[in-house]
Amino acid sequence: MAAAKIAPRLPKGMRDFLPDEMLKREYVFDRVRETFHLYGFEPLQTPVMELRETLLGKYGEDAEKLIYFAQHAGGKEELSLRYDLTVPLARVVAQYENQITLPFKRYQLSPVWRGDRPQRGRYREFYQCDADIVGIGDMSADAEVIGVVVTALRRLGFPKFTVKINNRKLLIAIGHYSGVPDAQLPDLYRSVDKFDKIGADGVRAELEQRGIAHEAVVRMMDLLQLNSGSGLERLAALAKLLGGDQEGLAELRQVAEHLANAAVPPQFYEFDFTMVRGLSYYTGPIFETFITEPNLGAVSGGGRYDGLIGLFRRESLPTTGISLGIERIIDLMDELNLYPNGIGGTVVQVLVTVFNGDTRAEATRLAAELRAAGVHTELYMQDKNVGKQMAYADKKRIPLVAVLGGDEIAAGVVKFKRLSDGVEVSVERGVAAAKIRELLAD
Amino acid sequence: MAAAKIAPRLPKGMRDFLPDEMLKREYVFDRVRETFHLYGFEPLQTPVMELRETLLGKYGEDAEKLIYFAQHAGGKEELSLRYDLTVPLARVVAQYENQITLPFKRYQLSPVWRGDRPQRGRYREFYQCDADIVGIGDMSADAEVIGVVVTALRRLGFPKFTVKINNRKLLIAIGHYSGVPDAQLPDLYRSVDKFDKIGADGVRAELEQRGIAHEAVVRMMDLLQLNSGSGLERLAALAKLLGGDQEGLAELRQVAEHLANAAVPPQFYEFDFTMVRGLSYYTGPIFETFITEPNLGAVSGGGRYDGLIGLFRRESLPTTGISLGIERIIDLMDELNLYPNGIGGTVVQVLVTVFNGDTRAEATRLAAELRAAGVHTELYMQDKNVGKQMAYADKKRIPLVAVLGGDEIAAGVVKFKRLSDGVEVSVERGVAAAKIRELLAD
Repeated sequence: MAAAKIAPRLPKGMRDFLPDEMLKREYVFDRVRETFHLYGFEPLQTPVMELRETLLGKYGEDAEKLIYFAQHAGGKEELSLRYDLTVPLARVVAQYENQITLPFKRYQLSPVWRGDRPQRGRYREFYQCDADIVGIGDMSADAEVIGVVVTALRRLGFPKFTVKINNRKLLIAIGHYSGVPDAQLPDLYRSVDKFDKIGADGVRAELEQRGIAHEAVVRMMDLLQLNSGSGLERLAALAKLLGGDQEGLAELRQVAEHLANAAVPPQFYEFDFTMVRGLSYYTGPIFETFITEPNLGAVSGGGRYDGLIGLFRRESLPTTGISLGIERIIDLMDELNLYPNGIGGTVVQVLVTVFNGDTRAEATRLAAELRAAGVHTELYMQDKNVGKQMAYADKKRIPLVAVLGGDEIAAGVVKFKRLSDGVEVSVERGVAAAKIRELLAD
Repeated sequence: MAAAKIAPRLPKGMRDFLPDEMLKREYVFDRVRETFHLYGFEPLQTPVMELRETLLGKYGEDAEKLIYFAQHAGGKEELSLRYDLTVPLARVVAQYENQITLPFKRYQLSPVWRGDRPQRGRYREFYQCDADIVGIGDMSADAEVIGVVVTALRRLGFPKFTVKINNRKLLIAIGHYSGVPDAQLPDLYRSVDKFDKIGADGVRAELEQRGIAHEAVVRMMDLLQLNSGSGLERLAALAKLLGGDQEGLAELRQVAEHLANAAVPPQFYEFDFTMVRGLSYYTGPIFETFITEPNLGAVSGGGRYDGLIGLFRRESLPTTGISLGIERIIDLMDELNLYPNGIGGTVVQVLVTVFNGDTRAEATRLAAELRAAGVHTELYMQDKNVGKQMAYADKKRIPLVAVLGGDEIAAGVVKFKRLSDGVEVSVERGVAAAKIRELLAD
């Protein structure tokens, strides 16, 4: 340990979480985990490092540049840090196919690493939070992952949000209907995807600028007008416009039916034929969830990707899933003030102060009693006067202090003071833990 | 995603945790976290990667070879994966000294990476679990971290274990008492440390073989005889032998007093003057915890290290702490069968079966009701007969199935079957969640 002292620094784009922030993150993680458990999703954990060959060729050239490689002195394997949670899932499904019972409903809440340019809200180490159902082609699975998103956001306290639902198959059908040649379809989707940002006129201008035929643009504009009315009405209108039913529409109708049966409140989802998710691996329904009031952007995405799970396996398995933008959600929890009172700050519920040297033994006994009764207790350990101890509790945002002077000890009682309002109360030692719970619940 | 398919494999020494194992790990993590919270330790999380310069020169040459280095294409920083949780703690204490209120009682439960030769029970990615108190020189802090270990192991259900307590200062005093020259002290400690394994005769033989003077060996043997009697008796006997009090003895007497006040049951700790912890950075009391019945080795270590926190800071701060060997504890939980019934397997409490296509809507409604009432519910999604659905529940170790055929729907009831004993019961839909809790609690 003889190294020269260097300045304590973090790598760029990486973060420490001190207790206050950590407790808030854990509050969010716990609510999300609870929601996954309600829906029967099981936890999975893969190691931080994967073999380099497992990740290479999976994300495209640009993304691949962002992958971290790792090695120890003399290590013979080429290793990479996890870039997302989907490729590890595909590996796990293939590697343990004899141990896994299908459907495999798993979630993973884990950090990933990307050597991206750090900026506000974008980090090089960040958590992803995915829930997927492997092995079910039926639309009930798609409805279920939508239900998970709605339930998680409601349990976190987000008042207004919308899961936008579209279907990759429908986007293709719409492209064909519009008469746009296949080669131009990516351009078409890119413009359509901006509908929310630049409006109908903006999309029209952009399409024409891209050289898409006027007639095709007009037909597209009709489609973009469909974004009103209830879910089933929109689906019916689109069917009429496209001149007949489409596989993609039939699927969305099934999704709508399952969502209604599952009592997912209709204000939380809508069909939006202009929503295009970038990733090319989607094969069916796609979802994207936006916080709408205030308008704060996307917090979740997902969809069906029936081909991807076959990356490490002879045959793929039908799969649908969602990813919660958990870092964004954590930021918004603060911005919208959604944390309940008492989340963050400290785990400590009560500080047992030490009146003087003679009373330390009794203070230690009291702390032990409270801990045995399940109270998160800090015993003051420095040699300072009670005023300083109160100031310490205040600074650390500990809600209650216990005072145990000679009089209290003689009378077999303990005095509690609640720092938020100065309420003081003396109770017998035997009921101290119960009184603490009462004081914290008020 | 056009890469050739490769075999799904893990890097050497790394592990996936499928749901069954993950649920058991989380049970252990949760019990440990609860214990830390009872004692007022706060969660901290540092990033997986640190700057290479932060770790270099901190662990010694042999250890340094095991550190993983990381880099992304074009990345300008030299990065390393976390090797332990102590150096990051020292960095955090220095980096945020204006934000952190002392004492800083933090725990961290996080993976670390070491490119060690993998073997049974030793992995290249494994979790460490540390709780430390930074900023307190008083022995009440040392007693508190001992209390944390005892409480955590008791809450996990370990019936018999002992925290062995010694003091680095005492080891030095004993060395001097024995008349062994300073240069030979490391040899002396290495032999003394083997007392439990090779006994008094073994240690004597080894000391003489190492060339330690006969008289010194005889004096050491007297000391090794002290390992009987109660804690305070041992301390008194050693004081007598050493011919006067020692700082190290006075400290242990204070630890003993705090432990008694904190009602830590005496069967869970003892003073053992032959216990030597390898790490050179300890400066005061040291602890090592052994599972004693059956004799299963060490599961926790720790001690006071008043110099280390100064690695990144002008002045150090007095610090004491413990590390739980959490991977070893997890292995022993299985070996000793300490998991309560129902831990592991699946998160799912009830499988809602689907009688036939006509009843799927109603089954979906039931699943939604149960989830809203807090029950972890899986809705069966495949098109198979009820017998196959029962077999699926059995295979996945789901404890209850709900059956909802036409008769049940007409009568507004639901039938539950408990798979462990075949008990069947029909109840009204409105009390279904309550009945599930009852069936699971029986």
